[in-house]
Amino acid sequence: MSEVASGAVRILGGLVEKARRASRTLARAGEDTRNLALFEAAKAMRERSDAIVAANQQDLVALSEDRNAAFRDRLTLTLERIEAMARGLEEVARLPDPVGRILAEWDRPNGLHFRRVAAPLGVIGMIYESRPNVGADAAALCIKSGNAVILRGGGESLHSSRAIQAAMEDGLRAAGLDEACVQIFPSADRALVGAMLQASGLIDLIIPRGGKSLVERVQREARVPVLAHADGLNHTYIHASADPVMARKVLLDAKMRRTGVCGATETLLIDVVIAPTLLPSLVQDLGAKGCTFRADDRARAIVPTLAAAKPEDFGTEWLDSVLSIAVVDGVEDALDHIARHGSSHTEAIIAEDAEAAAKFLNGTDSAVVMWNASTQFCDGGEFGFGAEIGIATGRMHARGPVGLEQLTCYRYEVIGTGQVRG
Amino acid sequence: MSEVASGAVRILGGLVEKARRASRTLARAGEDTRNLALFEAAKAMRERSDAIVAANQQDLVALSEDRNAAFRDRLTLTLERIEAMARGLEEVARLPDPVGRILAEWDRPNGLHFRRVAAPLGVIGMIYESRPNVGADAAALCIKSGNAVILRGGGESLHSSRAIQAAMEDGLRAAGLDEACVQIFPSADRALVGAMLQASGLIDLIIPRGGKSLVERVQREARVPVLAHADGLNHTYIHASADPVMARKVLLDAKMRRTGVCGATETLLIDVVIAPTLLPSLVQDLGAKGCTFRADDRARAIVPTLAAAKPEDFGTEWLDSVLSIAVVDGVEDALDHIARHGSSHTEAIIAEDAEAAAKFLNGTDSAVVMWNASTQFCDGGEFGFGAEIGIATGRMHARGPVGLEQLTCYRYEVIGTGQVRG
Repeated sequence: MSEVASGAVRILGGLVEKARRASRTLARAGEDTRNLALFEAAKAMRERSDAIVAANQQDLVALSEDRNAAFRDRLTLTLERIEAMARGLEEVARLPDPVGRILAEWDRPNGLHFRRVAAPLGVIGMIYESRPNVGADAAALCIKSGNAVILRGGGESLHSSRAIQAAMEDGLRAAGLDEACVQIFPSADRALVGAMLQASGLIDLIIPRGGKSLVERVQREARVPVLAHADGLNHTYIHASADPVMARKVLLDAKMRRTGVCGATETLLIDVVIAPTLLPSLVQDLGAKGCTFRADDRARAIVPTLAAAKPEDFGTEWLDSVLSIAVVDGVEDALDHIARHGSSHTEAIIAEDAEAAAKFLNGTDSAVVMWNASTQFCDGGEFGFGAEIGIATGRMHARGPVGLEQLTCYRYEVIGTGQVRG
Repeated sequence: MSEVASGAVRILGGLVEKARRASRTLARAGEDTRNLALFEAAKAMRERSDAIVAANQQDLVALSEDRNAAFRDRLTLTLERIEAMARGLEEVARLPDPVGRILAEWDRPNGLHFRRVAAPLGVIGMIYESRPNVGADAAALCIKSGNAVILRGGGESLHSSRAIQAAMEDGLRAAGLDEACVQIFPSADRALVGAMLQASGLIDLIIPRGGKSLVERVQREARVPVLAHADGLNHTYIHASADPVMARKVLLDAKMRRTGVCGATETLLIDVVIAPTLLPSLVQDLGAKGCTFRADDRARAIVPTLAAAKPEDFGTEWLDSVLSIAVVDGVEDALDHIARHGSSHTEAIIAEDAEAAAKFLNGTDSAVVMWNASTQFCDGGEFGFGAEIGIATGRMHARGPVGLEQLTCYRYEVIGTGQVRG
């Protein structure tokens, strides 16, 4: 191990030790205490707003000229954005307590009573990119769910993150909690990220939030469990039984409402029976909004002006005003296409035929499957979760939007009156 | 990568590809089809019992003379044991279907209906040691829960495992399912295990079942999620308020009923208030059953004949007739001891004081916490799960006994009438 790397392991070890200790007190803290910490942190954030803006200015001044306007905008904190962050903390405090929920309970013939009770995960590592508010949102969700968190924001936002962190620590202290419930990386040293990814048994979960390359690096290197999604290569399948008016409205929203979000539809699968009558109007609707197309041969036979899709286009998450189009022979063929090209994120079927819809909903291994709705509803807020820390497409623990409930696991409580197995 | 290792990766890749394809058909198969496969496999197992015994004889003849009688016994299959395996398959078939359960459902103001529906995980890798029936049990639980499984038994049981596998394949074929729903490693090549542990994104879950060194190797090397426990360093804490008669009865069972199981108590924590009156009789009860002791100074001040504990004794899972004993100053002190030495498996408190018990139950991060019951109840059968594939002490996905429900995750189904986010 290089000197730098072993230094990183030592620094991370210190953070983790403090986080583990803090997580134990946080897990035992009542709902009122955890909520108080969030309300007090919101108050401190408002009181410290001038200092946060000043710290953010330091980051903005130091920002490389290479960074584009969108990056600079994401990094920028105004008084208005700080107020929104503070309100976000208060909103999380007002959500139902995810800790201590009784998920199941039952009795056994020997009189033992069993309870499955929601409990915090422990220590969470959060890795994110330029927007400093992601750190505050994540810290709020972790405190509320009884988990300690170690935050690693983008190196460009270090001063901003520290100023926000000071407010979080104020809140924790005011509630009598260990301020190490929320910690941030002391530097932008990339070796620290490597050490975090290897900290199996020390950190219980890592959540990366950012671009595909960040998420893929985390998924590739992490020895710690990860909840994330790298791609949202989502399909909308228009079945032969679809209501054409609904299909046009829903597809337009699914593709064009916002093209850069992970819930956007990237590929249209259209049934061979309905394509001749419906595809031309779909293309017209979308084209009028600036969408371009990559279509297979059968789609181009119906609308010859469509550009020809290359094979890799059906595996491309456009995140842009581009739609891949394939004509399919029924539900099975649509499911086969999704199994080959999908990313297990979100799929939708537009259909009036309930049997076809049921077959579709049961036939993908995606985290979210929709019937007669826009894939853009794949969002924790739209699910009613109040807030989300990310969206997961893995198969273990939690899938789809990751909210407060998904930041807990459980323990079993077994209540007896002196039973023995004998 | 060495030639051997790249060969292993290629062989594993073939198994995984077939398993993934099989898992898709299995996930879509109805409950009746999955159950039929298990009943037919049981029938085939009975029909093939002579062939299974003969295959097992090959393994026994080839077994190294170094192996002790206990190992040879675990490897041995008799007609009676084969009948028990067949009955085990039928019992799993009769358990409630874990797939398709609606875990939650709710409506949103925009009319969207949300359902969280239990769904199979996908492809599971099962690594186990000498007892060939573990493979059949695991295959049954995987088929029932809609998961494809790749089995890697001990090298010593290769012929036995193949003969059992033939019966499982008969069952799958008879139900019209892909026989690749259950596959076994084609050889005992250890590089194949290495390839399996690295198959992140290809295999969804690995379950190791066997001795501590096997489990620790899997936990250390796996890039795939693992559900397992390496240690069951369980504590029974006798609170000042304990009923002495209950305490004696429960501790005797917790320690001595079976000393080699992972739910056995390894350390007694006894409250300083009750120790002077209770400890001598506890020692007498256990000693009469052949238990020996490793006690801290405060315990030895009460019962001077106890052997002195070395510091590492409190971190030792004895799996034998040995008990570590420490005197503690109340619940907090007991929880601190458990936090330092425990393995997050099972802890129990014996107490009449409900407040103390609640503090204890909420104060450990162990998978299972008990109040006035023997730690030996930590077992899927005793929980009412019908069957278990292992016990997990990690913090993600599932903890405690892993039964059918724990071999599923979920998907979200979102049902609309043409909603768009607009």
